[in-house]
Amino acid sequence: MSLSDLLLRNGRARPGAGDAPDAAMEGYLGQVEEVLEDFFVASSTRGRDLTPRFAGLWDALRTTTAGGKRLRPRLVFTAWHGLGGADSTAAARVGAAFEVLHTALIVHDDVVDRDFTRRGKPNVSGLYLGQALAAGLPRPEAEHRAMSVGVVAGDVALLNAYRLLDRTDVAASVRSTLLDLLDEAVHASAAGELLDIEYSISAAGLQAQDIISMERLKTSVYSFEAPLKAGAVLAGADADIIAGLGDVGRNMGIAYQIVDDLLGVFGDEAGTGKSTLGDVREGKLTVLMSHASTRPQWPAIATHLGDPDLSEEQADQVRALLTEAGSRAYAEQLALSYAECAQERLLGADIPRTLSHGLERMLSAVLDRRR
Amino acid sequence: MSLSDLLLRNGRARPGAGDAPDAAMEGYLGQVEEVLEDFFVASSTRGRDLTPRFAGLWDALRTTTAGGKRLRPRLVFTAWHGLGGADSTAAARVGAAFEVLHTALIVHDDVVDRDFTRRGKPNVSGLYLGQALAAGLPRPEAEHRAMSVGVVAGDVALLNAYRLLDRTDVAASVRSTLLDLLDEAVHASAAGELLDIEYSISAAGLQAQDIISMERLKTSVYSFEAPLKAGAVLAGADADIIAGLGDVGRNMGIAYQIVDDLLGVFGDEAGTGKSTLGDVREGKLTVLMSHASTRPQWPAIATHLGDPDLSEEQADQVRALLTEAGSRAYAEQLALSYAECAQERLLGADIPRTLSHGLERMLSAVLDRRR
Repeated sequence: MSLSDLLLRNGRARPGAGDAPDAAMEGYLGQVEEVLEDFFVASSTRGRDLTPRFAGLWDALRTTTAGGKRLRPRLVFTAWHGLGGADSTAAARVGAAFEVLHTALIVHDDVVDRDFTRRGKPNVSGLYLGQALAAGLPRPEAEHRAMSVGVVAGDVALLNAYRLLDRTDVAASVRSTLLDLLDEAVHASAAGELLDIEYSISAAGLQAQDIISMERLKTSVYSFEAPLKAGAVLAGADADIIAGLGDVGRNMGIAYQIVDDLLGVFGDEAGTGKSTLGDVREGKLTVLMSHASTRPQWPAIATHLGDPDLSEEQADQVRALLTEAGSRAYAEQLALSYAECAQERLLGADIPRTLSHGLERMLSAVLDRRR
Repeated sequence: MSLSDLLLRNGRARPGAGDAPDAAMEGYLGQVEEVLEDFFVASSTRGRDLTPRFAGLWDALRTTTAGGKRLRPRLVFTAWHGLGGADSTAAARVGAAFEVLHTALIVHDDVVDRDFTRRGKPNVSGLYLGQALAAGLPRPEAEHRAMSVGVVAGDVALLNAYRLLDRTDVAASVRSTLLDLLDEAVHASAAGELLDIEYSISAAGLQAQDIISMERLKTSVYSFEAPLKAGAVLAGADADIIAGLGDVGRNMGIAYQIVDDLLGVFGDEAGTGKSTLGDVREGKLTVLMSHASTRPQWPAIATHLGDPDLSEEQADQVRALLTEAGSRAYAEQLALSYAECAQERLLGADIPRTLSHGLERMLSAVLDRRR
């Protein structure tokens, strides 16, 4: 039985409730792609006028932004559409702004994590690393230059995410609220990144809740809470509904993050596009590991964490130990319980049915995703 | 004879022309300090609500922002005051926004340059490096964590510089023009940083003009052109005057940068607060070096460039060789000629006398500064 089946069984949701606004969603996502395309073409031209190198930077940012799941625009749309929003041009621009923000934050996060790939392909720094190595630079120097370009790339992406939102054609008060949401999301993400850096120095005594709080700040606020609230703001919703969607987003985002951590160890490599050895090799701090650290299997697991040369066989051992320790079941149960909280909040009286149906579908997708 | 004496002799400027608006300037700079103080206190409180670590980050940013020459606010004020501007509250906020922008850009520039000190004190990353080393981290790991915190710090400073400007209480069209100026300045700085990274990989065939263009983009646009134009925009000046001040700022900024490069090799250590060995030890690319590279003294100079263990005695040798090669005189002449261009533009008919007098004084200060 899948996690979303459990959600259905435990909760009060009805399968298939409401017609999926798939055509409307697809149309909207097409608009988002157009906004992004126009934005990257204009940025590249503008960059080239300053120095040809800059056009290349924008091309790298465009590549990084392309082909995502468009999770944030989907959330903007779902909230906006479910609340009877009318101006899809503005909604598409807001969705695009969140995608550019996402690019900015992952580019800098990859600098912090010293990652040169994402989803199995070179990231912005990775593209420049290749060039620097080809130019004959020794590897440490080449890596530093590539990371430096990543710092610059994230900066311009961050500023432009704000600018995209700032120049959305909406009433001044709506614009101001949207900018506040983006601002709060960036500050939350910075706080999460700081905690992540701190925990990577010393993880002693960390509880699952500490890790969940860190991941929520770093990723969920800007990826779930803010897009949902932004969609509601655009649709002219009441403060209660906006706050309610923030609660839904927080719980949905945490569930998403825990599923992400599960996929990072147990997911199939083809599906996620990232090596499922990665999280173990880098010793990533997750609720799985936090749970396992209190179990008798821990010493056997811990020897493999952070081993960059971990073999497939050793990874299988780690997976078996995490399952045996009950850590896998614990994390699955935890993801489910956050999804249930989201569902509970969705069924509250103030959220219109059309919207709660759309979000329930997204919630099931969050639990069942394979990548 | 100092460079500014030469400027007076060659140009048409009159020494002591116009009364210095010192009291007004000091009053304005006091307002800027108040805006900055309020901003950092509010940011620190806001950060603490997310995680205590964040308050520390803001304290580090405040320390980095404190005690500068307030060059950018001085330029905003000079343009604004010289053009009859009335609302000093808005002008102080704009000056403060440029100082926060400056902090954002130098924090990230220090990450790119792997510098942990600025003006002889630990910078943002330097403060965290000390903490990470004290926590027992091996040096490479500690450096990376410290740099990572620098990335986050620059991000929030950058966003907040834009927000400070965005929330200035001025007419919508003025606000929009000010934001465009900041946006252009950030993009110019990013372009300059990209060129700097590129040149640090391969400096073959670089001309003085290439270095000047890079330094202009990286530093002068946001430090001179944009603040002068912003002051004029705030004062409600015509497009001609705004563009004219952009020209003045470009030439003044380039002169400033060349003087900076001279101070970086010949300046007295007590005055600049940075070791004058630094530029030679890191092999910094400057017009001095570009000129020297075509002279017979070059091989003897080049052996010392980028030597982290350069002694005082060897530095004296480099200074003597640069003087003998005519590179020092060349750079001084170049700075003077850019200052003359600025002066020439200032004497154009469209810039009011009160303003040109104020800027002439700043121009002399740029040429004669010792730090």
